[in-house]
Amino acid sequence: MPEKIDDLYSFDRMIHEPARLAIMAVLWACESADFKYLSMATGLSKGNLSAQLKKLEKEGYLQITKTFKGSYPNTSAALTKDGRKAFDAYRRSYLKLAKELS
Amino acid sequence: MPEKIDDLYSFDRMIHEPARLAIMAVLWACESADFKYLSMATGLSKGNLSAQLKKLEKEGYLQITKTFKGSYPNTSAALTKDGRKAFDAYRRSYLKLAKELS
Repeated sequence: MPEKIDDLYSFDRMIHEPARLAIMAVLWACESADFKYLSMATGLSKGNLSAQLKKLEKEGYLQITKTFKGSYPNTSAALTKDGRKAFDAYRRSYLKLAKELS
Repeated sequence: MPEKIDDLYSFDRMIHEPARLAIMAVLWACESADFKYLSMATGLSKGNLSAQLKKLEKEGYLQITKTFKGSYPNTSAALTKDGRKAFDAYRRSYLKLAKELS
């Protein structure tokens, strides 16, 4: 199997970090998710989630939208076109290694 | 799918780093591998490979053996029992996420 292991270096470090990988994987599955749902689905603390969302937004991988649900502020996030493309590339490398490991 | 994403936090960071993940994956497949083979199979530069091997050895995940092949010094590495156990746990988490992503 080892002839394909060097594909690992194409792993996008911005996505590979487990907290961000969790966020990206949730958003890959959902069209868009609000802050509360993301926190529940990823198990991240609010502070960590907030920090990681900002990093991913800065990278251009997701868009954060602040609206109101009635009188409550509501933050939601969705992958951008670039984010979806980047995650798809990461996902392919990830699944390639999964084949080697299974 | 997102109900399982928080398993990601059990990812062993020592293994998750791509260079070390490549080394561990090669050694998982082989009983033992020499430096030259590891360098070829992982695509890592000699300096980087050497540094990562030392980190993994310090963690107790692999054992480095220096011998001679004829009059040439030969360095080889093999997973320890702890390393094999740690990689197996990582591998299971990895494959669990792969199922969600495929």
